[in-house]
Amino acid sequence: MNEDPDTLVQSLGAAARAAARAVSLASGSVKANAVRAVAAALRDDLDSIFEANKADVDAAKGLSDAMVDRLRLDPERVMAMADAAEAIAGLHDPVGQIISSWDRPSGLRFERVRVPLGVIGVIYESRPNVTADAGLLCLMAGNAAILRGGSEAVRSNRAIHKSIVQGLETAGLPGTAIQLVPTQDRAAVGAMLGATEFIDVIIPRGGKALVARVQEEARVPVLAHLDGNCHVYVDRAADLEMAKAIVLNSKMRRTGVCGAMETLLIDRAAVDKAPALIRLLLDEGCEVRGDVAIKGMEMRVEPARPEDWDTEYLEPILAAKLVDGVDDAIAHIERHGSHHTDAIVTDDAKTAARFMAGVDSAIVIHNASTQFADGGEFGFGAEIGIATGRLHARGPVGLEGLTTYKTIVRGSGQTRP
Amino acid sequence: MNEDPDTLVQSLGAAARAAARAVSLASGSVKANAVRAVAAALRDDLDSIFEANKADVDAAKGLSDAMVDRLRLDPERVMAMADAAEAIAGLHDPVGQIISSWDRPSGLRFERVRVPLGVIGVIYESRPNVTADAGLLCLMAGNAAILRGGSEAVRSNRAIHKSIVQGLETAGLPGTAIQLVPTQDRAAVGAMLGATEFIDVIIPRGGKALVARVQEEARVPVLAHLDGNCHVYVDRAADLEMAKAIVLNSKMRRTGVCGAMETLLIDRAAVDKAPALIRLLLDEGCEVRGDVAIKGMEMRVEPARPEDWDTEYLEPILAAKLVDGVDDAIAHIERHGSHHTDAIVTDDAKTAARFMAGVDSAIVIHNASTQFADGGEFGFGAEIGIATGRLHARGPVGLEGLTTYKTIVRGSGQTRP
Repeated sequence: MNEDPDTLVQSLGAAARAAARAVSLASGSVKANAVRAVAAALRDDLDSIFEANKADVDAAKGLSDAMVDRLRLDPERVMAMADAAEAIAGLHDPVGQIISSWDRPSGLRFERVRVPLGVIGVIYESRPNVTADAGLLCLMAGNAAILRGGSEAVRSNRAIHKSIVQGLETAGLPGTAIQLVPTQDRAAVGAMLGATEFIDVIIPRGGKALVARVQEEARVPVLAHLDGNCHVYVDRAADLEMAKAIVLNSKMRRTGVCGAMETLLIDRAAVDKAPALIRLLLDEGCEVRGDVAIKGMEMRVEPARPEDWDTEYLEPILAAKLVDGVDDAIAHIERHGSHHTDAIVTDDAKTAARFMAGVDSAIVIHNASTQFADGGEFGFGAEIGIATGRLHARGPVGLEGLTTYKTIVRGSGQTRP
Repeated sequence: MNEDPDTLVQSLGAAARAAARAVSLASGSVKANAVRAVAAALRDDLDSIFEANKADVDAAKGLSDAMVDRLRLDPERVMAMADAAEAIAGLHDPVGQIISSWDRPSGLRFERVRVPLGVIGVIYESRPNVTADAGLLCLMAGNAAILRGGSEAVRSNRAIHKSIVQGLETAGLPGTAIQLVPTQDRAAVGAMLGATEFIDVIIPRGGKALVARVQEEARVPVLAHLDGNCHVYVDRAADLEMAKAIVLNSKMRRTGVCGAMETLLIDRAAVDKAPALIRLLLDEGCEVRGDVAIKGMEMRVEPARPEDWDTEYLEPILAAKLVDGVDDAIAHIERHGSHHTDAIVTDDAKTAARFMAGVDSAIVIHNASTQFADGGEFGFGAEIGIATGRLHARGPVGLEGLTTYKTIVRGSGQTRP
């Protein structure tokens, strides 16, 4: 295929636009049946998907072990992909839901009704399961999807996509409702990012370099987060045992997730609790980079440099400092945070309320771990990502975040004076 | 002031960001008091605003009469601006409203809470009243605003802005919560459109050329509509008298508004009703451009050319054609419409439901005039514009459309397994 990327994206986009209309009008049960048919096709095609993936892995010599691990599918992972599809099929269909309704003195009745977004572009890296997960979530919310995966996973993605198309068509939906960009030409990504006529929103799934490129270049609206520089603030009125549990879990449960704590702020009025918290983290193998006060508490603490306050480590490394109460904590978070997820530990309801109002992040948490920043934990069933932009959807984006609304007005012949 | 435009917008933006935090935390009554103080200041400063406007009008020789009319303020118009401010002060504060709340088996309680968008850039043309209207709507929703008006209204805008700052400061809010770009250098608009770090959303208010430029160039998200190519479809099951009233009102009440009908679609099965509708419009002074069938009904009908179906006239001109029932009407609207406002006239509930589901527009209307496409008619009290984009806000954008949400999570020490 030697098309230029703009022409290619236009033709994918036009097909997606047409498919999106069909999917937008499909009932919840038709969509669920299609997603289940895809799950069945993935199971049937397990061998060919596994073979395709082996070829990708064989060709991937030179990639890091972490990348190869993200790329690799084994039969369990393929079955897990099918199970994830079944779970998506079981989600409540948001389309057609009446968000609000009201009457006016004119006698008109207004209904705000949820409708699909339209065509969603997903740009992702080496994990081939995203092909099924993201495509099917978009579909279940009534959208068409255009998927652009990483070049190292091209054989796996094509095999998975074949199962998807088969499942869609079995259920009577257009196979073009979930399309895979057929070229690995990087210019195709640029063409997607500019295709405002054909793509309604772009969702990047991958590392920071990918998200940064997409946010920098896209003319199509983007739902994403670049950084998860998350904070836990331990207030003077915190229960020490609760603080220890939340701090440890927020940092160490998984250090590589976007909801992991990266900076610990401790109220100067709770300075007596600080050494226990810092030692707990050090003992669990976490490097701590502290300000002068924290450093003075423990020999093992490294000195924090100014850039530490702005760093998302995604590793067992933590920045830590004392602050002068909740207002200073809020000021630090607003200055250095990424508006993703920030938590306070306190037994003082007034202080908590001040923090929840003052911290302008997608997710603010009182007395629980930052690692609850997850669509599953929110009860969304599945998420396509977490957004830290201010428009449309903030926080975990599930089916509902993949919809918009229209207003239906019902009259009995009203004209406007 | 000889700053380069990027530096200027950065300094306005940094001040707006700081002011936005103060306004976001202000209570509804503090914001309402500030808006009322602005109304009082506008009344007190009536003479100086009127004088400044006279200087603008005197300098505006060479502009069209319509532009000068939009530019001109008389004492009544200044008082109307103050009255509009009072009305904004009376609107319900959306900030802090709990949109939804739910519990999870983890014991966590989730609340989705409305918060301000942040910093809103408003780019507008000759109407100086937008300075007060748009600035105060943004403020009432808890936002800071950066306003860039037309160069022909610069003296009027400065005088109005002076009253705004005075009112804000009287009420204890920062005067920088509503800033006016102090230069008429057109490059300042370009700098605003790219200022993703400082401006959260841009709202253009003005003619199509302005909106097109903003949509074309902006890297900051835009809430706007480019076209209002609105349709009325008269179905076979329409009541003729109702159809006549709705068609006439949709087109002729005001032809220059974005909710005015531009194309009339008549069901071929209702062809007997068509001549009465067409003659009514012709008799009221509307030019009708019809397809062959419509043209054959009346000598006064002009032949429609292909581009007529895509044209927003904003004048007493209408395109009209026969379609083969509701599905053909939907197909025409989806192909030629602008996803703004479209209406069906029918007494058949099933046909109406088909139309309401199938037409993918911000506003779809059953048995009422398209001219109800207006924030006031929706009960929003005031609107900053109508958006036809798919993300965030669709249709009239009132206070609620100028907000976003965050999720507050309340726990009792939960950690994630």
